[in-house]
This record gives sequence, C-alpha cells and structure tokens, in this order.
Amino acid sequence: MSEYIEHDARGISVGLVEKKTYTFAEPPHEMQLESGARLGPITLAYETYGELNPLKNNAVLVLHALTGDSHAAGYYADSDQKPGWWDIMIGPGKGIDTEKFFVICSNIIGSCMGSTGPCTINPRTVEPYGLDYPVVTIGDMVTAQKALIDHLGIEKLMCVVGGSIGGMQVLEWCARYPQVVVSAIPLASTTRHSALAIAFNEVARQAIMADPNWNKGNYHKDAKPETGLAVARMIGHITYLSDEAMRLKFGRRLQDKSDFSFNFDADFQVESYLRYQGKKFVERFDANSFLYITKAADYYDFEQLHGGGSAVKAFSKTRAKFLVISFTSDWLYPTYQSREIVKALKKNGLDVSFCEIEADWGHDAFLLPNERLSAMIRGFLERVYHEC
Amino acid sequence: MSEYIEHDARGISVGLVEKKTYTFAEPPHEMQLESGARLGPITLAYETYGELNPLKNNAVLVLHALTGDSHAAGYYADSDQKPGWWDIMIGPGKGIDTEKFFVICSNIIGSCMGSTGPCTINPRTVEPYGLDYPVVTIGDMVTAQKALIDHLGIEKLMCVVGGSIGGMQVLEWCARYPQVVVSAIPLASTTRHSALAIAFNEVARQAIMADPNWNKGNYHKDAKPETGLAVARMIGHITYLSDEAMRLKFGRRLQDKSDFSFNFDADFQVESYLRYQGKKFVERFDANSFLYITKAADYYDFEQLHGGGSAVKAFSKTRAKFLVISFTSDWLYPTYQSREIVKALKKNGLDVSFCEIEADWGHDAFLLPNERLSAMIRGFLERVYHEC
Repeated sequence: MSEYIEHDARGISVGLVEKKTYTFAEPPHEMQLESGARLGPITLAYETYGELNPLKNNAVLVLHALTGDSHAAGYYADSDQKPGWWDIMIGPGKGIDTEKFFVICSNIIGSCMGSTGPCTINPRTVEPYGLDYPVVTIGDMVTAQKALIDHLGIEKLMCVVGGSIGGMQVLEWCARYPQVVVSAIPLASTTRHSALAIAFNEVARQAIMADPNWNKGNYHKDAKPETGLAVARMIGHITYLSDEAMRLKFGRRLQDKSDFSFNFDADFQVESYLRYQGKKFVERFDANSFLYITKAADYYDFEQLHGGGSAVKAFSKTRAKFLVISFTSDWLYPTYQSREIVKALKKNGLDVSFCEIEADWGHDAFLLPNERLSAMIRGFLERVYHEC
Repeated sequence: MSEYIEHDARGISVGLVEKKTYTFAEPPHEMQLESGARLGPITLAYETYGELNPLKNNAVLVLHALTGDSHAAGYYADSDQKPGWWDIMIGPGKGIDTEKFFVICSNIIGSCMGSTGPCTINPRTVEPYGLDYPVVTIGDMVTAQKALIDHLGIEKLMCVVGGSIGGMQVLEWCARYPQVVVSAIPLASTTRHSALAIAFNEVARQAIMADPNWNKGNYHKDAKPETGLAVARMIGHITYLSDEAMRLKFGRRLQDKSDFSFNFDADFQVESYLRYQGKKFVERFDANSFLYITKAADYYDFEQLHGGGSAVKAFSKTRAKFLVISFTSDWLYPTYQSREIVKALKKNGLDVSFCEIEADWGHDAFLLPNERLSAMIRGFLERVYHEC
C-alpha cells in the first residue's frame, strides 16, 4: 500500500496489490451445497486493500458481478497496468476509502478467476471438473465467502456491497448471517430474476451449448467453444447497455466506411463493438463458468429462500442499515425491482436510504465513474462507521 | 371466397385461399437493386382476398414482417387449418374488411416463403444462390411489390399497411410512389433501426454464422445451421415480448417440476418456451433469409434515403392520409420512434391520426387480437374509402 500510482483523472489508487488464495473444505470435510451435492477442497482467490483496525470493525466486503474477479482495485506488478474493475470506487479518499476501511474482494466459486470452478482440476479425476462440477448457488458462493471472512478473523462486516449478482450476494449475506452484517449496499440489483433476465441468460447458455466445441463441457484438451461464448457475451453486452446508451455511444454510425458493404461484414460501429467485446471476452473467461454463474443467478430467489415467498419476511432477521441504489436506464434490473427491496426493508422498520441515479449507461452504470454514486457510498459508509 | 370457416371467437374467415406467383425481371431485364447489383428472374408469391371493384380504388396492400409470408388470411385446403398470420385482422367484417376491400399480400424478396431469395435456385449455377444472392434492401422489396401491383392492373393503393419491417415498407411506398399511395398505416414501426435494434440483429446473425453447419451460406446439400438459427430466433423472441409480457406469461414458473434440476436442462417455463420457439422456427425458415432480411432492416434509413437526414423532407412528396400506431410495451420500436414519424407528417400538414395502444405484449402486440386496434383500422379505412 506504500506505493501509489497516479491513475489519470480518477485520483490515486491503492497501488500495487497481490492476489492471495485460501483453501478449505478439504475432504472429508467438503462443503455441503444447496443442491445436496458436496464440494471440496475449495480455493478462493481474494485481495485486500487498506488495513483492518484493532477493533476489527472497519471491514468492507465487495462482491463482484458475473464475470468479475477478486481484483477490484489497484495494479498487479506484472500486468499492463489496467487497474482492478472497481478502482474508481475503492482507494484512498474514494467512495470506499482504503485509508479508513479494510476492503476484501474474493472471486466467487464457479468462476474461473482463481476460485474453484468447472475449469479447476477435479482431484478425483485429475482432469478439469467440466460438467462434473456441481451447480452452485448464490447461497453457496456466500457460504464460501463466510469461510474466508472467518479465516481472516473478522466477526462483523461493517458493510457488504455489490452490484448486479454481487447485489444478490449482498442480500444473501443479510439473510444468512444477520449477526455479521452491519450495513449493506445492493447496487443495480434484484431479489430474483425476472422472466426477461432468465430469457437472456438462457439464450446465452444455448449459444454456448450450440457450439460443437463445447462438447458437453469437455473442451479443455481441444478447441474451446469460443464462437458460442462470444455470442453469449454479445447478448450480455446488449443487456448491460440501454437504448439511450447505445444511441449516444454508437447511433447508426458506420465503421470506417462511408457506405454500406452490402455483405455481412460489420457495417455499423455497434456491430464492430459487439464483435470486439465477444472476441476479447473469450480470451479471459471460461464457457462453463458462464453457464454455472448465470444458472446460479437465475435460480436465486431471495423471497422464496428466506421468506416463503415474502420479501418482508425474508428481511425480518437482518438489523443492517441499507443503501439501495438503482439506475434510471437499467433495464436488466429496473428500478421497480430495487423499490421492492426498499419497500420490504421499510416494512421491517429498517434504516434504509434509496436513490435512483439518473444515468444513461444502463445496467453497467454502477461500474462507471459517477461522482454522485461515489459521494453517496462515501457518506453512507462514514455514517455507518461512526454509528457502529 | 365462397366457403367460410368458423374460426373460434374471432369470427368468420376469408375461407380457403391459394398461393399464387408472379415472375418478372427475366434476363436480360433484371431488376436494378439499390446496391448496384442486378437480380432476375424474380418470382413473388402472393395471395389476394376480396374483390377488386370496377373503379379499382379499394386495393389494400398488406406488408409482412421479418419471418412472415404471403399467407396473411384464410386457410389452405391441404394444411392443418392454421389460418394466415393476420387472419384476426383480414376477413369479412374484420379490421380490413374483405367484403369491401381487395387485399393483397406478397412475400418479400430475400425471404424463403415462395419469393426469390437465397434458397432459390440461381439460374446461372443451377444451385441455390446462398451468399451469391445479392443484399437486397427495403427499397428493393418495395420495387418488386410495385411490379406485382402493376401486373394486377392497380394504379392506386387505397392503403398500404404493415407492422415492424412491414411498416418500413409502408414508409418506403409513401416516399417512392407518392402518386400511388392514398393512405398508409405503419404499425409498431420506425423510420430506421436504433443501435439497440441493430445490436440484437447482429448478435442473431453472429449466432447463425457461428454455426459450423452454416458453411458460409452453402448448406443446402448438408446439415443446416439449425442450432445457430434456433439461437437467433430465441434472441428475436425476447425482443418481441416485453418485461411485463414475460412476467405475465411465465414469471418464474417452473417447467413440470417442483424443484430445480441443478443441471442445464430447462428449469423455467420461459426457457422451455424459447427452446421450443427456436426448434419450431428452424422447420419453417431459412438461415440465409434471416441474414438477408435483418440486414435489409438494419440498413433502412428513411430519413437518409429520402430526406438527406430529415424525416420532414422525406415525407414532403406524399399526400397520403396516415394512421400511425405504436404499443406501450414495444421496446424494439418504442413509441417515441412512432411519435417522430407523426411529428414529421404534421410538419408537412398531412392528415395524420396517431394512437399509442396500451398493450402488455411488447412488439408482438400488433399481431395479437385487439379489438381497439381492429376498430381503429376499420374506422380509418372506411373514412379513407369514402373520401377517395
């Protein structure tokens, strides 16, 4: 943390960071999953920024979205100096101030970014798990995170914060470990996927499974299902942006051409953008992980799991303070879904702040620089810290 | 037309109908396309319902959407008695009353439903065109329709009506043949695709082209790109419905199961629905046609083609009366896009009625039974007929 690197207009960063790992649930003590299956050993990749204070009451757990990882802030020594995915929010003096708080971010199980997932070697077969990897749930991801928090000797989390399916994990933490969570910030999130969100995920999964290279998940020795995964990512990218975001970003502008190609090349900039995003994604992400994580997100139903169908009941055990944030142009998890969370929290008499932020960038807005968002999170965390 | 078949609650039908064809542009008189390429001979599949009156002033041209065909109403003698795609609207006493009007519907060029498209035999090679088929535009489709109208001896179209990309053809008719079109009804349509609409089409095309069976469009002797086309159709289906439509139709209901499968089967009804729609579609539609028609729709830019970027200027030649209709939950061609059409028409001092219909069913709403829609079209056509 001693070495700060200037990071353009976004201010200073936490500097050089390192990926760490924690392994637990060694056989015969495998973790019991929600499906009834067992999984172990489990490794979690994680990073921390800032220092845990002696009272251990300044820990903030950051929960990442679908394709995120444990690298939430700062830089790796050997990398091309692209900072962590939420570097605009996490750092000295930033929304989540690493001069005050101890920030933890771990890669979810089922992913391919260092935590145990379908591309991890299955110790029984000494081959990658592939589809032998059990279907994990949002609850299973949180159970694994709790093991890490215990390992770090932390009894209370001053805050759990995350966007999108990171927000689902926030809700799950509140219901599952009400005695641990002091405050919670679900961003651009929902208690459960709408049919529309499930539909998008299902089409993306079908695109992967339609790729002959997918080979029922056994592609680790051969060509990977890159075309299927690229199409899946392209579908995702459409859902992360909004009609307005795409209009502002691309409109009908053509790709370095003054006229149409009259063939099936990419004519429009939005086409090139999507093709590029698809292509770039397959270099860093695993197709099976995409299947597992989207399925976990689709299965998640906070009301059903913790309240017999009632969100009010599902929040009845938590005493956390809440900051709920949605974005006007997010049509994957629209504001009405955040309002339902707020309504259920208020019916429980909980301390809840809600803000719908005007933003053109759709669901992705929570990942983009936004002074208002940073200020709101900064203010909330300071209040919580002083009150706890 | 003498034989009426009772068609459940929707009233009587035009009865048994037949698909006809008209062939023109025989070499060396091929049709000049917008791209500069030439195409011929061209066959159009078409159907007619009702009778052309002696004054020949009661003709209504119906223009179909992406995967539609010439079979807009009635039944085929040898079929399983599923009526034409707009049978709810076209028939005796219906919105487009076949006791008063002579209705024509032809399959667009580029399609695979009887008109010349990429799966037609190329007379030069005696093989299906495949990607040797030239990229056709909305304008080219309309030029071909004009040849059919001329062939039928019709000088004035009392009305041109169509939804979605059928609506684009309506606009194109108005700009290209202002002396022919007496009135026009663009439904759930737009003057040009937004970046979002292009993005959805591009991902669908990528899904087809990612299927190894697509084989650069040469799949007519071998296995067809069915998995790619199914994924493309699934993407389309999401855009035709709305968040609300999916919530009402599926919600999070499970498919004949009381619990999750914890594998990658279809757990939710919305997943089964999409898989079924994808599977059903590949039986009736050609993958290359899907590529060509979506490209034509993406290219279409009414403002640019006819007004140098101005919709007001693009409508300056037409004297048609307009009925413009949009649907509240249509997020593929949202109401604001219809409002832009209305605004440009009004600036030209034209006779225009506009209605945004409250409907939960998204873009597909124009194809579904809706008494208000039928009544509005019926009233508009009667007025136009009496005024012309």
